[in-house]
Amino acid sequence: MPVKFADRMSTVHRSFIREILKVTEDTSIISFAGGLPNPELFPVSELEAAAVAVLQEAGPQSLQYSTTEGYLPLRKYIAARYKEKKGIEVDADEIIITTGSQQCLDLLGKVFIDAGDKVIIERPGYLGAIQSFSMFQAEFITVGLEDDGPDLKELEAALDQDNVKMFYAVTNFQNPSGLTYSDAKRAAVAKLMKGRDTIFVEDDPYGELRFKGESHPPVVRGYLDEGGILLGSFSKVAAPGFRLGWIVCGGETRDKLIIAKQASDLHTSTFNQHLVYRYVTDNVLDDHIEKIRARYGKQRDVMVESIKKYFPAEVKVTEPEGGMFLWVTLPESSSAMDFFDEAIKNKVAFVPGRPFYVDGSGENTLRLNFSNSDEERIVEGIKRLGTGLKNFIAKA
Amino acid sequence: MPVKFADRMSTVHRSFIREILKVTEDTSIISFAGGLPNPELFPVSELEAAAVAVLQEAGPQSLQYSTTEGYLPLRKYIAARYKEKKGIEVDADEIIITTGSQQCLDLLGKVFIDAGDKVIIERPGYLGAIQSFSMFQAEFITVGLEDDGPDLKELEAALDQDNVKMFYAVTNFQNPSGLTYSDAKRAAVAKLMKGRDTIFVEDDPYGELRFKGESHPPVVRGYLDEGGILLGSFSKVAAPGFRLGWIVCGGETRDKLIIAKQASDLHTSTFNQHLVYRYVTDNVLDDHIEKIRARYGKQRDVMVESIKKYFPAEVKVTEPEGGMFLWVTLPESSSAMDFFDEAIKNKVAFVPGRPFYVDGSGENTLRLNFSNSDEERIVEGIKRLGTGLKNFIAKA
Repeated sequence: MPVKFADRMSTVHRSFIREILKVTEDTSIISFAGGLPNPELFPVSELEAAAVAVLQEAGPQSLQYSTTEGYLPLRKYIAARYKEKKGIEVDADEIIITTGSQQCLDLLGKVFIDAGDKVIIERPGYLGAIQSFSMFQAEFITVGLEDDGPDLKELEAALDQDNVKMFYAVTNFQNPSGLTYSDAKRAAVAKLMKGRDTIFVEDDPYGELRFKGESHPPVVRGYLDEGGILLGSFSKVAAPGFRLGWIVCGGETRDKLIIAKQASDLHTSTFNQHLVYRYVTDNVLDDHIEKIRARYGKQRDVMVESIKKYFPAEVKVTEPEGGMFLWVTLPESSSAMDFFDEAIKNKVAFVPGRPFYVDGSGENTLRLNFSNSDEERIVEGIKRLGTGLKNFIAKA
Repeated sequence: MPVKFADRMSTVHRSFIREILKVTEDTSIISFAGGLPNPELFPVSELEAAAVAVLQEAGPQSLQYSTTEGYLPLRKYIAARYKEKKGIEVDADEIIITTGSQQCLDLLGKVFIDAGDKVIIERPGYLGAIQSFSMFQAEFITVGLEDDGPDLKELEAALDQDNVKMFYAVTNFQNPSGLTYSDAKRAAVAKLMKGRDTIFVEDDPYGELRFKGESHPPVVRGYLDEGGILLGSFSKVAAPGFRLGWIVCGGETRDKLIIAKQASDLHTSTFNQHLVYRYVTDNVLDDHIEKIRARYGKQRDVMVESIKKYFPAEVKVTEPEGGMFLWVTLPESSSAMDFFDEAIKNKVAFVPGRPFYVDGSGENTLRLNFSNSDEERIVEGIKRLGTGLKNFIAKA
C-alpha cells in the first residue's frame, strides 16, 4: 500500500539529539550529551507519600477524566508562586496545564502558525521548538545571542519583516547556550515588541536553577505589559517523568489554546496533576530546589574549572550562573561533528551544535551538560575531551 | 495587540459536549450526557500498591525522561494481550504508547492530513476524531451506519473519490451509536480497503466492555492483512486519568508517528506507564474487566427495559451488547436540541446527536450514557425523559 504522508512531514526529522543519546546508552561512555536532570535528586520518597495520600484521599476523582484547563488547585499554586518568586501578577484562570512544556510549543504552533509564517528564534535555538514549529511549516528567522541576550539590531530587523507571527525566546540559562538575558536586554526586548502584532513567547524551564547572581523578572508581565505568553515546567524542579508543564496567557488566545489542547489529548493526566500538587503542598519546594542548585552549582564549577585546566586556550566556553548546559566554541575552522567521532573513540559524548542552527552555521560549536554527571566523571570526561581537542585542533 | 490566529482555528470549535457537561455539574441533574467510566469501579487500592511498588523498586527511573516509543514492558504486555484476546499478531516494536488515544488522532492528523485531504468517517461519527482531523483541515466524507456496520455502497462510493487519505472507524460499540461491525461487514470492509492507498484506522476503546454475545477479531490484522492502523486505550479498562493509549502500526508510518510524537510532547508520562504496567502484572486485568462488564451490563439492561416501559413507541433505540452508550432516534420532525431544553427543566441531561453529524443532519437523534449512573437514577431519569418525550412529540 503506497502511503502519501502530509507535506509537513518532509520538513521534520527525527531528533538528532535522540539519535546521539542512543550511542550514549553504552554506560562506559561519559556522556555530557543529554539534557537530563540528575535522577539522584528526584524526591522519590516524598512522591511516594504524595501518591498514597492522593489515592487514599481524592481516590477515584484523581483517576477520572478532567478539565482541559487543568486542576484548579495546581493552577492556583503556580499563580501564587509567580507572584512570590517573580513579582508578576498571574491569575489561575490564565494558566493551562500541559503535557510537558513541549506540548505548549505544539499548541502554539496549532493556534498561530500557518505554512510559511515567520517565527523568530534565537541562534543557536532550542531544538524542541524548532521541531514543533517545523511541524506547522514555519519559516525561521534567527537572531544571534550575545552574552547578555539577543542582538537587538538583528531582532529589530527581524521584527520589521512582514508576517512575523512569533518571537520565541528562552530567557534564562538557554538551551543550548546557557546564556541569560540581562535586565537591560529584557527591557529593550519589551520595548521592541510593544505595539506589534508579533507574539512574544517566553520559555523558562531553567529559571529556578540559579546557583549565583541575581534573578531577573520575566520579560512577560515583568517588562512587557500587554500580551506575551509565558511557558513553565515541573520537569527541572520536580521530575520530568510526569510530563507537567503550563502556559500562561489570557484572552482569546487562551480559548484557542484550550480548543487545540482538547483536540490534542483532551487534558493532562489527572493523576499526575493531583500528585504533583500534593507533593508541593506537603513539602517545601524551595528546600528541594536548593538541593538541586547546590549539586548542579558544584558540578558546573567543577566543569568550568576542568575546562580551564584541560582545554586549549583557543576554545571558548560560556560560564552560566545556572541551568544545565555550557556552550563551547571551537576555532572557526573546526567541525564539532568531526570531533564528536573522535570523542566517542575516547568514550566521551557531547552534542555538536549544528542542529541548533536552522541556517546551517554553528559547525564549530558544541553543548556540554553538567547536571547529569558526578564530579569525578566530569573531571575525567573534560580531561579526555581536552586531550582530544588539542590533537584535533593541531591536526586541522 | 491584534492577534492573527492560524487558518485551521477557524474550523474547530470548543467541544459542544464539554459545554453540555458544564450544565450537568449541577448534581441535582440526572446526567446521561457524559462519556465517563464509572469511578466506583476504578481499582484505587490496587493502583496505590502499584504506585508504591514502582517508586520503591524502579524509583528515579520511573520519574526520568524516557523514549518516545514508550515503556517496552508495557508494549510487550499489550502485544501479548492482542495475541491472547484477539488472535492477531502484533510486535511490541509496532506499538507506540500515546497520551491517551485522543493523541493517536492528533498524530495521525499530523502525519497524514494536508489541508483539503478527504477523510471518511462514520455517520454519526466520533466527536474527538472530528475535532482532531478538523485541526488539520480535513474534508469529511460520511458513511452511514447500519445495525451491523457501515453502508457498503456508501463506503465504496466514498473510497472511489480522489485523494481519500483515511477511513476512520470505531468497530465495537461505537461512540455515539453503540453499534458494532458484524463479522460479515468486517470482511467486506477489508475487501473494499485492499490495494487502495487509503489508510484504514480502527479505533477500539470499548471492545473489552462486551456484556453478551461473541466478540469479533479487529478488521486490522484480523481481516485486513496489509496496512491498517489499530488504536487502543487503558481509559475504559483501568482509568482515564492516566492518559494512556497506544497505536499499532509498522514500517515508515511508525517512524513518522514517532517524529510527530517527539514534536508533540516528547513522550508519554514515564511514571504512568510504569504504574499501569505494574498494575496489570500484579493483578488480573480480566477479573477487573469482568466486574466492569457485570456492572455496565446490568445498567444497560435497566436502561433498555426502562426505555421500553416509558418511551413512546415511535422512538427507536439501539440495544448494544457492550460499551457505554445507547443511541436514540426520535420521529423525523423532532429536534433533540429543542428536547434538550425541555429535559433540563425536568433535571435530566443527554447529548443531542447533531454534533456527531458533520453534514448537519441527525437533528432527531441523541446519545444516552449508561455507564456512569446507578440503576435507581437510570430508572428515574428514563421515566422523566419518557414523560417529557410524550409531551414533546404530542406538541410537535
